[in-house]
Amino acid sequence: MKLATFEVQTSVGPVERIGAVDESTADDTAGEATLVDLTAAYGAALEAEGEPAPADLAHARVPPEMIAFLERGDRAIADAREALEYAAETDRERGPGGAKIRYEPGEYDLLAPLPRPNSLRDFMAIEEHVQNSMDGEIDDVWYELPVYYKGNADSVVAPGETVKWPAYSSIMDYELEIAAVIGKRGRDIAAEDAEDHIAGYTVFNDFSARDIQGREMKGRLGPAKGKDFANGLGPYFVPAEDINVLEAPMTARIDGEVWSEGTVDEMYHSFSDIIAHVSQSETLHPGDVIGSGTVGGGCGLELGKWLEDGSTVELEIEGIGTLEHTVVE
Amino acid sequence: MKLATFEVQTSVGPVERIGAVDESTADDTAGEATLVDLTAAYGAALEAEGEPAPADLAHARVPPEMIAFLERGDRAIADAREALEYAAETDRERGPGGAKIRYEPGEYDLLAPLPRPNSLRDFMAIEEHVQNSMDGEIDDVWYELPVYYKGNADSVVAPGETVKWPAYSSIMDYELEIAAVIGKRGRDIAAEDAEDHIAGYTVFNDFSARDIQGREMKGRLGPAKGKDFANGLGPYFVPAEDINVLEAPMTARIDGEVWSEGTVDEMYHSFSDIIAHVSQSETLHPGDVIGSGTVGGGCGLELGKWLEDGSTVELEIEGIGTLEHTVVE
Repeated sequence: MKLATFEVQTSVGPVERIGAVDESTADDTAGEATLVDLTAAYGAALEAEGEPAPADLAHARVPPEMIAFLERGDRAIADAREALEYAAETDRERGPGGAKIRYEPGEYDLLAPLPRPNSLRDFMAIEEHVQNSMDGEIDDVWYELPVYYKGNADSVVAPGETVKWPAYSSIMDYELEIAAVIGKRGRDIAAEDAEDHIAGYTVFNDFSARDIQGREMKGRLGPAKGKDFANGLGPYFVPAEDINVLEAPMTARIDGEVWSEGTVDEMYHSFSDIIAHVSQSETLHPGDVIGSGTVGGGCGLELGKWLEDGSTVELEIEGIGTLEHTVVE
Repeated sequence: MKLATFEVQTSVGPVERIGAVDESTADDTAGEATLVDLTAAYGAALEAEGEPAPADLAHARVPPEMIAFLERGDRAIADAREALEYAAETDRERGPGGAKIRYEPGEYDLLAPLPRPNSLRDFMAIEEHVQNSMDGEIDDVWYELPVYYKGNADSVVAPGETVKWPAYSSIMDYELEIAAVIGKRGRDIAAEDAEDHIAGYTVFNDFSARDIQGREMKGRLGPAKGKDFANGLGPYFVPAEDINVLEAPMTARIDGEVWSEGTVDEMYHSFSDIIAHVSQSETLHPGDVIGSGTVGGGCGLELGKWLEDGSTVELEIEGIGTLEHTVVE
């Protein structure tokens, strides 16, 4: 199942909804898929069963906003599957109150699955990337604990959205990452229980302005302006049980040419270890996003080449989809 | 005017409200002041004027949640002043629907003015602190641009709340800072316009676990576990026009003994320069919090001494109040 957040235009203004890709329509290019409105479809299923207040109950069980949806944990995912199955079987086009069950390409705008995550932590868990990026100088601490910075959760760009590069930077780079999304609140989580807290995964492009990033990191508080102008997440969010995340092939294509390929099988610190580390004396919340760090060779910095004005970056993870952005100066 | 977020217990569970200190009751020790419920008082004033829907209108103009309140910018502050004046003049005890106008000590729990800021950025803008903390090695970049890290907006502790120190750390420290709170959304803000975007100020205790902080910063992505377990904000939020922030005396007392004194007059990068820097290609939102960085000598690291199990830390900024926490192992 591939989950999405999307927006539809209505006579009372734009409305945000959550959906799932109708896999029977085959084309799962972002924005080109048929989406099932999960709240509407779940409501339609309830209505068919004779539920007297199907819209209200559907809204509570399959909330049309991704963080509220994730708050329900595994139950929301199970209800979403039910909704998707019902939509595949029924010939009804509308749920309770006349809500449309299905949106064809062109009828919606795809947003990032989490347009505004609760938080964004990005790790650097793959040794090859660190070796390539840090001139071979890896401090011992890198092996001892997963190091990370916190990104700007307000800077998420939608799949397909053009990224306007900051005027203060001229070295434009991407980073090929996978992000785990927390679906279950927790604190002091043991590594062996950590997988239960991951709702699923999405593609993460950690756009990086290398010139300012290098300068500001000399100040010792980590990256900020080098990262915080844009975070690509999407196009879909895939429940953990639907993807073998360690083996999923990951590819970066720049203007159609493959620049990077890898998997996160190489993570020195696993997502479980990361969650155990971060959650010590800190509560993790549904909608928290955890970036894996860049796969080996997964950015221009490691390859000695940069994006240019007008470059199109496609990050593909098999089983999730292709996240595409064009950068402009 | 001193604004607060507080919680009252009701038969339908806890309810969050915003208030202002009734200065006529003199004692402004956190939790010991009489608070005027601003939404209720504003509603009472509207009701007295004959407004037919006073509760709804008061809720929209003086929302009982601080970020929603800040979204209204200067207008919310002006409406809050009106509400406070009305409360001082009236002998009514209740607003529309019977909402209490005034809460005495013991009738409420004081929360941080922003129990969950939209974001938390913390700077290191005072040279003396940097010199004292970084073994005298200040990189040139520190002078060229304001460096910062992003804190954990989910880890705000209430004034008076006991801070349980993380088990992974045994070096316990405080940092004496002032925080500016953004009240007006903006992007690419010019330094000369930046003050318009600051709604006001509060006291900020950037608790720091020095052992893990030192280790993780060698990983070059900045502090995380060293900072993210607790952020003290409060006790009150004071509108910008009510405080001369650069001259306000700041004091840290540990178990009643003065350890640190200073002002942020020494900031090398001003709040205006910081806002201009951060807002380049990034939108600042109401409820974003910007820490000044520690005043010179404003933490144990600079003084060669640490907090102990059971230490009480009071950070006082004249015109804002005293933010007190006890740390326990």
